[in-house]
Amino acid sequence: MSPKITTELLKQLRQVMKNPKYVQEPVQAYIVPSGDAHQSEYIAPCDCRRAFISGFDGSAGTAIVTEQHAAMWTDGRYFLQAAHQMDNNWTLMKMGLKDTPAQEDWLVSVLPEGSKVGVDPFIIPADQWKRMSKALRSAGHDLVPVKENLIDTIWTDCPQRPCKPLITLDLSYTGVSWRDKIVALRSKMAERKVMWFVVTALDEVAWLFNLRGSDVEYNPVFFAYAVIGMNTIRLFIDGDRMMDPPVREHLQLDSTLEPEFKIQVMPYGSILSELQAVGAGLSPKEKVWLSDKASYALTEAIPKAYRYLTPYTPICIAKAVKNAAETEGMRRAHIKDAVALCELFNWLEKEVPKGTVTEIIAADKAEEFRSQQKDFVELSFATISSTGPNGAIIHYKPVPETNRTLSVNEIYLLDSGAQYKDGTTDVTRTMHFGTPSAYEKECFTYVLKGHIAVSAAIFPNGTKGHLLDSFARSALWDCGLDYLHGTGHGVGSFLNVHEGPCGISYKTFADEPLEAGMIVSDEPGYYEDGSFGIRIENVVLVIPAETKYNFKNRGSLTFEPLTLVPIQTKMIDVNLLTEKECNWVNEYHQKCREVVGAELERQGRHEALRWLLRETEPLARVQ
Amino acid sequence: MSPKITTELLKQLRQVMKNPKYVQEPVQAYIVPSGDAHQSEYIAPCDCRRAFISGFDGSAGTAIVTEQHAAMWTDGRYFLQAAHQMDNNWTLMKMGLKDTPAQEDWLVSVLPEGSKVGVDPFIIPADQWKRMSKALRSAGHDLVPVKENLIDTIWTDCPQRPCKPLITLDLSYTGVSWRDKIVALRSKMAERKVMWFVVTALDEVAWLFNLRGSDVEYNPVFFAYAVIGMNTIRLFIDGDRMMDPPVREHLQLDSTLEPEFKIQVMPYGSILSELQAVGAGLSPKEKVWLSDKASYALTEAIPKAYRYLTPYTPICIAKAVKNAAETEGMRRAHIKDAVALCELFNWLEKEVPKGTVTEIIAADKAEEFRSQQKDFVELSFATISSTGPNGAIIHYKPVPETNRTLSVNEIYLLDSGAQYKDGTTDVTRTMHFGTPSAYEKECFTYVLKGHIAVSAAIFPNGTKGHLLDSFARSALWDCGLDYLHGTGHGVGSFLNVHEGPCGISYKTFADEPLEAGMIVSDEPGYYEDGSFGIRIENVVLVIPAETKYNFKNRGSLTFEPLTLVPIQTKMIDVNLLTEKECNWVNEYHQKCREVVGAELERQGRHEALRWLLRETEPLARVQ
Repeated sequence: MSPKITTELLKQLRQVMKNPKYVQEPVQAYIVPSGDAHQSEYIAPCDCRRAFISGFDGSAGTAIVTEQHAAMWTDGRYFLQAAHQMDNNWTLMKMGLKDTPAQEDWLVSVLPEGSKVGVDPFIIPADQWKRMSKALRSAGHDLVPVKENLIDTIWTDCPQRPCKPLITLDLSYTGVSWRDKIVALRSKMAERKVMWFVVTALDEVAWLFNLRGSDVEYNPVFFAYAVIGMNTIRLFIDGDRMMDPPVREHLQLDSTLEPEFKIQVMPYGSILSELQAVGAGLSPKEKVWLSDKASYALTEAIPKAYRYLTPYTPICIAKAVKNAAETEGMRRAHIKDAVALCELFNWLEKEVPKGTVTEIIAADKAEEFRSQQKDFVELSFATISSTGPNGAIIHYKPVPETNRTLSVNEIYLLDSGAQYKDGTTDVTRTMHFGTPSAYEKECFTYVLKGHIAVSAAIFPNGTKGHLLDSFARSALWDCGLDYLHGTGHGVGSFLNVHEGPCGISYKTFADEPLEAGMIVSDEPGYYEDGSFGIRIENVVLVIPAETKYNFKNRGSLTFEPLTLVPIQTKMIDVNLLTEKECNWVNEYHQKCREVVGAELERQGRHEALRWLLRETEPLARVQ
Repeated sequence: MSPKITTELLKQLRQVMKNPKYVQEPVQAYIVPSGDAHQSEYIAPCDCRRAFISGFDGSAGTAIVTEQHAAMWTDGRYFLQAAHQMDNNWTLMKMGLKDTPAQEDWLVSVLPEGSKVGVDPFIIPADQWKRMSKALRSAGHDLVPVKENLIDTIWTDCPQRPCKPLITLDLSYTGVSWRDKIVALRSKMAERKVMWFVVTALDEVAWLFNLRGSDVEYNPVFFAYAVIGMNTIRLFIDGDRMMDPPVREHLQLDSTLEPEFKIQVMPYGSILSELQAVGAGLSPKEKVWLSDKASYALTEAIPKAYRYLTPYTPICIAKAVKNAAETEGMRRAHIKDAVALCELFNWLEKEVPKGTVTEIIAADKAEEFRSQQKDFVELSFATISSTGPNGAIIHYKPVPETNRTLSVNEIYLLDSGAQYKDGTTDVTRTMHFGTPSAYEKECFTYVLKGHIAVSAAIFPNGTKGHLLDSFARSALWDCGLDYLHGTGHGVGSFLNVHEGPCGISYKTFADEPLEAGMIVSDEPGYYEDGSFGIRIENVVLVIPAETKYNFKNRGSLTFEPLTLVPIQTKMIDVNLLTEKECNWVNEYHQKCREVVGAELERQGRHEALRWLLRETEPLARVQ
């Protein structure tokens, strides 16, 4: 990896920072955040502005360019990568280290008095704007919105914003029509006494209208906004994709409808002016509901007194609770995914000893097997296929420079998933194709104990996921071990593989309580720098639990694994398991046998079936 | 309990709310919070203003009186008590219920336009003032500070502010001299670049100067403030107690000292004017450090730009980590406390079957046995002595109206503790003097499993206590049970029985990480309304843990019980315990035998010793 040479680009950027064509007054600093106008986690190539200006293309980072300096803030996952990808023009700001200044403190320390700091108001979320603006103001500077994105002005070969065809999802997939979702949303709006709701997150637009797209890799979403009034529906979307007959029919664009269900289709770029018009026409007490993570530009379109901001939108919360059709779809998707992985692992078991399988080949083979399954759409994230020391890099993705050959001497970690039309998968298995050491088995077994502790946990209705995080760590903690990431994230239904508002992590406190129907991942791990990585991940569904008693009639919840892929028993030190844990493994494997076995049979995949049966032999605990 | 008649008092209060002698302009509402000028949990009789005006004397509540209304906000613990103690002039506002308005919303709904709402600026914490003031201002009203406390103007027989003699603690108790504490504090101040530190919490003043008092029941503190500069020490305290030769010697008031250690003693009432003088004399960049819970009056004395506010002060954090002398003192105190409880439980075992022991008699007897121990000072909180259904009232304190007789048919719960000159205790034991039912044993055993899960937990250095809370609940959750309080609180060293900044609760997220030397309680419970309450509480010390591995060299921590009182084995269903849990109980009881047994022997308490030996027979688990 050689760094990107950015001298000329930075010169050009510094010129446009003073060019009255783009800025009312010169800006002495320009902030280039990651992210797009929808605050998406995964972004389209045209939105990779920070990578364009710096060369650093990790998933998280903020660049700030002043007349003299160029600095990049990123976190521990990317210190090495950023250092390799950026040239000497850039200073790496290692977030999380004690001596690294916050962006605002650094700006204050380098800027001349009374400076203007520019940022694209569509990219920066309103809450971040507020914090940054306050800090700068108190030091005598100003944060100013620069309407035209300054990176775009110098990015001559910037790719076009994608505008791919849409997929319509019928009731058999979604369980609820878009009309009924609008009705439910309006009733939430009425409860909070708001007149308008602005949908800014791409997965929320897709979910609301039961549409999917492919504008962004891995996330089946499309660029759009929506503004829902008590009597109007406006959808802001570009391209001739709205001319597609199935889409027109799905949205009933050509039908005679009650006016409150008539969708007005408007250009994507007109959202700001339309929202400003809404903002200007509000009567007293008419509130507009926005996510507090919506962009500063859209938030500002509504006068402050009329804003109703919440961290989680009603769509985010409704979307998290899967209905019966979605749950059944997720089950089907996970069975197909398990079939693909049984094929893969059977293949790896035969091929790895030959020394010809690299991390990239294994990842490609996983995709190949998945793509053979019905309703396969694409992967749900970049496959983490890592062996030996690469497994210790938590967000590793094999590239030719790092690509390692799988062997019978190293642990192999595969974290992968797919988008099927009926559901989204995300599964991690850690395997050894030779003979694992006692120490490797010991560590794997602690991780497994943590995985089971979460998966089998029973907890009261209304419990927030972060209260379960320590269960996943307890066995590791007992031996002085731990892992430095959260334990689980929400998973969408043929939508983003990471979604709010629930999760299992020591880091958050603001997560919403777990409810039956929510779907999260359960993925504790253990990583030893320079030698190996272990992670065991299932996607699990929150279900009601039967308990002996029922305190205050609150009811209890537990998890049901949707992922049904064998956990390699060769890696388990059975003597470290309790009887309960041993039974859990055996019952889990029994279910894999029954459910996935039947599907392998049905698909005529007999060799993979034999592999499954071999891998799911019950564990025997020495008493 | 008959309610207090408040018609005349409210009339008088409404008069002074308009009396120009006390208010610049009439106030249309007056807020009477709980609490004193130091934001203490336990308050002196002269500070019980809310109880005086309303009759309601629970530990938490806020009264607001307008020209037409009188309303009292309190939480679920006190709904019944408040309803009994208040007359018809008062409306009870049940906090936590969905339809109960917040104080500011209620004020806005009842006040005439442009009203003034008064409050004593010494009683309201700055952070509460800010919130309330903002809400009122946005509705066109004003929150105004009323210098003279209006309750005091009508409280003709208000008791005097206590001003009791001080106790000096030498190095054998404190481990660190007050001079060295000042040096350490100044180094923290230098780190944060602050020039002044204002000590407002009573236990922080007491800790800093190695002094104790008895101005407030249960808390060995005295009314005082301190202002520490980089070169000055000012102690604001009243009374001739500063004339006491041992105190003068302890503080070296008559010695020739380096000027930066010379204590200037000033009248308690002069804190505001002195702080205003400090505020007025600050040069740019000279900051003043205050707790963000300090009173509005003191916070306002420092111009906003010069304030440095933190939720936990450096004294609060330093005080929480006990040194060797304090830890040894706590150990001694807990051994003496265990001796007293062995005597009590032995006595109860003989007396309860006679049917003559009431909750109050049992509580008094506990105090009697404790008072026989060396260096006993007073109780550390009001004894919770509760049998049968009274045990389900979590903050129960027996009074003649509720006093129940202990019997061989009901569970008895005793939560009690004492202040000894060498340490503070807080212990809960739940016992049965007849034959507990299988269900009672089952519930007790779940609570015990939770207690052990926390006590035996091993966790990384830097872990916050709230991450351990679920361990205490897991066994209860498995059966659909739970308890509606936190699991533990910090405990002072011959200081307040509840202290920050650490604890074990699902409710907080802002607790400071646990460190070796911190002391917390471990007290899960289970309560069945109308039948019984179970709680098992030890005070535990955070100690380093030896672990097999040491991830990232972080080191691990665990707990060592300081409380050494037998846990009634009769209440345990041994078959519900794992082998590890069973061993924990046996090892704990073995330690009680050895340590407390030796002390009982030394004190010649042979009958109690025999009781101890009987009660600590090892459990035998059926394999």
